[in-house]
Order: sequence, then C-alpha cells, then structure tokens
Amino acid sequence: MPNILPVKYEDKFCYNINFQSSFNKLYESLIEIKPNKYDKICVVTDDIVEKYYLDDVLNTLNDKFNLVITHIMTNGEKSKQLSEIEKLYEELINHNFSRKDLLIALGGGVVGDMTGFCASTYLRGIDFIQIPTTLLSQVDSSIGGKTGVDFKGYKNMIGAFYMPKLVYINTSVLKTLSKEQFACGMGEVIKYGCIWDSNFYDFLKNNVSYILNKDDSVLEEMIYTCCDIKRQVVEIDPKEESIRSYLNFGHTIGHAIEKMSDFKLFHGQCVAIGMVSAMYLSVKKGWISRNQLDDLKDLLIKYNLPIKTSDISAKDVLLASKSDKKMENQKIKFIVLEKLGKAMPYMDFSDDELLDAISYVIEG
Amino acid sequence: MPNILPVKYEDKFCYNINFQSSFNKLYESLIEIKPNKYDKICVVTDDIVEKYYLDDVLNTLNDKFNLVITHIMTNGEKSKQLSEIEKLYEELINHNFSRKDLLIALGGGVVGDMTGFCASTYLRGIDFIQIPTTLLSQVDSSIGGKTGVDFKGYKNMIGAFYMPKLVYINTSVLKTLSKEQFACGMGEVIKYGCIWDSNFYDFLKNNVSYILNKDDSVLEEMIYTCCDIKRQVVEIDPKEESIRSYLNFGHTIGHAIEKMSDFKLFHGQCVAIGMVSAMYLSVKKGWISRNQLDDLKDLLIKYNLPIKTSDISAKDVLLASKSDKKMENQKIKFIVLEKLGKAMPYMDFSDDELLDAISYVIEG
Repeated sequence: MPNILPVKYEDKFCYNINFQSSFNKLYESLIEIKPNKYDKICVVTDDIVEKYYLDDVLNTLNDKFNLVITHIMTNGEKSKQLSEIEKLYEELINHNFSRKDLLIALGGGVVGDMTGFCASTYLRGIDFIQIPTTLLSQVDSSIGGKTGVDFKGYKNMIGAFYMPKLVYINTSVLKTLSKEQFACGMGEVIKYGCIWDSNFYDFLKNNVSYILNKDDSVLEEMIYTCCDIKRQVVEIDPKEESIRSYLNFGHTIGHAIEKMSDFKLFHGQCVAIGMVSAMYLSVKKGWISRNQLDDLKDLLIKYNLPIKTSDISAKDVLLASKSDKKMENQKIKFIVLEKLGKAMPYMDFSDDELLDAISYVIEG
Repeated sequence: MPNILPVKYEDKFCYNINFQSSFNKLYESLIEIKPNKYDKICVVTDDIVEKYYLDDVLNTLNDKFNLVITHIMTNGEKSKQLSEIEKLYEELINHNFSRKDLLIALGGGVVGDMTGFCASTYLRGIDFIQIPTTLLSQVDSSIGGKTGVDFKGYKNMIGAFYMPKLVYINTSVLKTLSKEQFACGMGEVIKYGCIWDSNFYDFLKNNVSYILNKDDSVLEEMIYTCCDIKRQVVEIDPKEESIRSYLNFGHTIGHAIEKMSDFKLFHGQCVAIGMVSAMYLSVKKGWISRNQLDDLKDLLIKYNLPIKTSDISAKDVLLASKSDKKMENQKIKFIVLEKLGKAMPYMDFSDDELLDAISYVIEG
C-alpha cells in the first residue's frame, strides 16, 4: 500500500491523505503545500485528545512557525454549536490571524467539522488541515470537505463544503481509543462494505480478531481501503448531488435516533442501528435476503455495536427522520442496498413501511 | 449597451448580471437557471425596502412556486450579525427549506451580504440571487460573491466567497433613494474611476448634473460601466489574492473610521474620506499631483460626500486600521494610486506617514 492517497476536486489535484504511524512526519508532510507561507498556526483540539497527543503534535511544529497557539474544546457532540465556533473566531482575532495563517484540526469528527467550518468562514476562508484521531474521523469525516455544526438539534444543519489542504492519518492513535469509540468507527467501516465493496465486507468478516486486536498491517489495509472508497465517491460527487448520498446509508434513521436519544448514543452506534433498519427495508423489498440481514447483525455485534435501541417511540423517530435535511419534496430520500456491496436511493417507502423498519430496531 | 453582462468564475460562466428598468422581467431572467427546479423561495429584505418594493417582487413570483415566504430584517449595518443570520436559519428550518430551494436578497449591501452568507452555510449551501436596491449594492457588493457578517465590531470578519445565480439590477429603484444613500453609492462609483479607468473618472466629472438628476441613460451607462469593471477584476482574481484588493482603495482607513464612529457614518461616506486619505499618501509619494487630490475632493463634494470627519482620534483610527483584516505580517496592505486610473498595493508606509494621512481627514 502506498502511504499517500491524492484526492481530486473538480478533476484537479486537491489534497493528499498521508498515512503514517506517528506524528513525526507531520511537518514533512506539509512540505508539498509550502508550510513556510504560513505565519501562525492554531491547533484546535478537545480536552481528551489534548491529553494524549497535543504535545506530540506541538513538538513537530513549535520551532517552525512564528506563533503556534492551541484552542481546546470540550469533547463531544454537545460542543458542535455556533457558540463554540464564535469562541474560536475570537481566539483567532485576538491573535491577529490572517488569511496567511493555518488551522489544524486534531481530534475526531466534531473537532474536524468545527475547525473546517471555522476555516471556511473566518475572513471568508483560511487554510486548514485535518489530523483525525478516531477511527470514525480517519475513515470518514476528515475526507471530502464536509464541515459544519448542529443547529437547534439538527445535525450538521449549518456548514460548508470546504476542502482541507492535507489529511494526516496516524494509525497508531487508534490504540488509545476506548472499545466504544473504536466500535463507532467500525460502524462506518462496515458501511463501506455494504454500499460499495462486498469483498471488503468479507475482509471485515474474516479479520474480526485481527481488527479488534488492532493488528497494524490489517488495520492499515482497512483504513486505506475505506479512505480510497470515500475518495472515489467524493471525487465523482463532491457536493452530494448523486452518489455521495450513498454514504448516508444507515444515517437517516441513525441521525433521527441520535437526536431522539439526545445524543446519549454515539454517532457510530446510531448508524449501526440505522443500517439494520435500512437493511430490513431491503429485505422487505426482496433485494437482500433475511440471511444477509442476520449476517450484518452478527458482524455489528462482533464489532461491539448495538443493533437495537430502546426507550424511544418509532413515531418520534419517523418524524425526526422527516425533518432531517435529506428530504426531497416532502419525501425521505432513503439509501438502501440493491444488493450487498451496492447502494441506491429509494424515495417511495410508505410511512407504514418506515414505521415497521424503525420498530424493528426498537426494543420492547 | 447590452442588458446582460455574464460573469465568469474560474474561467467558466457563472452568472448573469441582468439590467432592467422594472421588476417585471424577474421570472423571465430566471429562465436560464431553470426556476422550476426550485420548490420554495424566501425573499430576504429589510423594513425599509419592504415598503417600497417587496410587493412588486412578490407579484412576479407568487404563482410560480409552491411557497414564497419573506424574512424582514431591520435596515442598517447593525443587523449584520451572526444572531440575525441565526434568525434566518430558523425561518428556513421552520419552513423545511432544502437544498432545492432558493433565497432572494432584495435590498442593499447588508441584506445581500447576509442572505449570501446564509445561503452559503445553510445545509452547506443553497442557491441565491441578488436584487440590489441601492446604488452601492448595484455597482459593488452584489457582484463578485463576497458574503459575510460583522463580528465583535470587525467588518465582514466572518463570511464566504459564494456566487449568486443571478444579479438582477432594476435601475429605476435608484429614484427612491435618499440623497445620502445615493451619495454613498457614488463613493464606490468614483472609486472605480480612480483605480481602473481615468476616462470613466472624467465621465463622472462631466455628467454631475445628469447623474444627480438621475437621468436614465446616463445612470444606466454609469452602472453598467461599474459592473463591468468589477466583473473584470473579480474574473481575474475572485478570491482577493492579487488585484481584487485594488477595490479596497479608500477602505482600510474608511473601515477604521466607520468602526471608530460606531457606524454613525455610512459605509460610502467613510470610503470617500478614506479615498481622500489614501490619495493624500499618493501625493506625498509624488505619484499624484496636489491638483488631482483637490480635484477628487471637489468631485466628492459635488456628489454630496464628506471629505473629512471629526470627533475621533487619528491614533485610534490607525490602531483600528491595523486590526483590519487586510494585514500581512503586521503591515497594513494599503491600496494607493500610482496614477489616476491605476491602483497598486503599497506596504511600506511608516506609522508617521499614516498618522499624517489620517489627520489630514480629521477636522480640528
């Protein structure tokens, strides 16, 4: 496997994804984007990632720029608010950040989405790079330029398509992830198998113990494959006008469950439950066999993911799904599987069909 | 003069500026961007423009779309805040606006900048069109895709480069502008002559009474010429990396005065004062003659613009200039004239030179 994966945007080279096993090569990886053009750096991270990795990252940067500052957020989805973005704006203003300076997102999806959104709007846009530190952000959110914040309980309602200048993936950080955090990433990993590549789905079935034990070479292959699938998807459809929406497999009901559970369940857990529900719809339509659905549920359980939730009403979840932004003409645009390894959009489920599929993943 | 001026972005056609003398051709002007793809429309305007033109605009749209709503802001720069953008987001969410819907900015620069910023960030970007109703917005802010809001007293600190789908200029609306509002636009009009086209500068000198009396054909020629100059500039440098900054002639000190006067002076008035100060710097360097400076002051006065302000300290204005975003490596990037009709950037003014030039436009 090469350790650099170039990503195009509108048919032109846009940025590299650089795979490494430490933070030591960070400055070196910046060479292609001429880091000496940047005067000041702001490393944005959260109060958990800070403890593990901030010093390592700062050590690679500190003597290379005129000023390196840090901005620490509280870990978790609850921080993903415009009010937190405003705090970051203020930090940048207080240090006279200009369009010639650089932001670095060091953390998971929340830190990446927020730093990217701040970069896209501060002074009408300054450069930023992504250093994803969770499995979920390494295989998904750091790639493809989606940035954003939640608004009034709606996920990613406000945001921008804004490309990073570099995605630096240090796979060794996955060793410090909690079992739960790692599982959340596996939800998105399994999604890639479902929607795009049944061979990769089999790879995930055949390597459960290697992956759970974080075998270096198997993990690297897994992450590279996911990034490469995401790269292909976003190169074809950067603005989510067609196939990029396939990546929302499991997300429409997943987001609704995430919202109804007031973000007590993690994103990856909700996506896992949402995938089961979406796969159930495919079973009902005869596109997927009952065995394949059971197989997916087995796989999710092996990777420590939930396949059901409780204490919420199916009707409320349906209602929340309908207020999600993936609506077209009052109809939910659902991503389903036409077969394992191939997704497609489907708009014509009745409310009864949807309620049935949602009830299937709600206990009691 | 043709009544359509196409504007390119990154060498491809991006949008038309459509010149008309009423709102009757609005829907017709949308035909090229296939208006039937839009389900819902939100017309954003302010409480002054509402009274004059909202009904005219609504009449051209009301039976053409499933839903047409309006969102009214308070007129003026004080509205240009993130908190007002949040109100607009809420309005759109409450009416289930999706990426298939359209925003229309009906108003001056504040309405245009805010609507554009909202469009650039709502659901990571929805389409919008500009219907500028002030001279200033017709010749300047509606063209070129700069959107934004002020933040903590800093002008346009937060924003995005985001292109409209159409700019519809109804020149007849200028007849209802106050003398002051019209004068403000003339500040930017005169700027184009200074930085780009000395023949146009002479046209403005030779047609004072026609322009002040709002002679249709002279006004149309003036507005078309300004739009065409702005078009040339933003096509060459859409992201303000080089010559687009020439448009900031008069704006660095202008913005600082605007801020120090707590926005009691209008933008165009501050720009007029800023141009006098910047021209004075060119005189000091020997690029422009003292006569040419006096000539500019005469012209500004004829068009009812101020050439001085009072009750603020030159030192405070200098400090505010330095915290403006047009800084590079702690130096103010000043736009000056190397001759009448040709701007250039200059970074090497000393604080004493700047203080002298600022004091020149402060009375007492």
